[in-house]
Amino acid sequence: MDKDPGFIAAVEEAKNGAGEGGVPIGAALVSKDGKILGVGHNMRVQKGSPILHAEMAALENSGRLPASAYEGATMYTTLSPCDMCTGACILYKVKRVVIGENKSFMGGEELLINRGKEVVVLDNHECREMMARFMKEKPELWNEDIAV
Amino acid sequence: MDKDPGFIAAVEEAKNGAGEGGVPIGAALVSKDGKILGVGHNMRVQKGSPILHAEMAALENSGRLPASAYEGATMYTTLSPCDMCTGACILYKVKRVVIGENKSFMGGEELLINRGKEVVVLDNHECREMMARFMKEKPELWNEDIAV
Repeated sequence: MDKDPGFIAAVEEAKNGAGEGGVPIGAALVSKDGKILGVGHNMRVQKGSPILHAEMAALENSGRLPASAYEGATMYTTLSPCDMCTGACILYKVKRVVIGENKSFMGGEELLINRGKEVVVLDNHECREMMARFMKEKPELWNEDIAV
Repeated sequence: MDKDPGFIAAVEEAKNGAGEGGVPIGAALVSKDGKILGVGHNMRVQKGSPILHAEMAALENSGRLPASAYEGATMYTTLSPCDMCTGACILYKVKRVVIGENKSFMGGEELLINRGKEVVVLDNHECREMMARFMKEKPELWNEDIAV
């Protein structure tokens, strides 16, 4: 799944975020028939937003859609989703969450599984490296983003 | 708590949302020392946003804050929070969630309680009436907002 267009788009978004001086986490929402509905990256720094995590930005950038658009959808994200993003995936009933890595941060994977979602963790080296660098260089920003 | 400034602000926001032709749900985030950090209402119609539920809008309008700003905070909302908004309250570690009513919709109250939040349900008549009218007049919009 490292080669899925959705995952490649999510990693690209994370890099965009890093390039903008932000939190390097990206996401892509992909419909069951493989169409990328929306992509996004964390916008805490860029927009001063506490809610535009990567997954939320991907949902927002997908626009206002009927419930049917999310049926069977996959949320690709470079990092294990926090409680907010986990809840958003549950609300919109995405079928599957594909996660770049969960070594840097373990989010709501257990809740996702309990709510019937398919959770795939890729343990992707590039995602781990991006987060490791970021957490080393900007620990205050990272702590702020996960409300520590 | 029906007389708390935070709750009054949340109801006012819900009315603003209704006046704009939107989903009539409002919220206010109040710090432990009683300062209103931000208010907001559902913006699905107004901004075509799937993520700006009332509680999310209140968080967004509070701006980028350190974790300490949320310590001991209360989220007032006119309706029981959906899974996304529940997750956001957990992420930001608000202490208490005060809910106008949960007859129209029961959200993630159990999860909030399991995560140590104080949950207060006011069963407020005005909130119930607003939602009942809305759900009767615009059932498609309501279903879309909760992804049915």
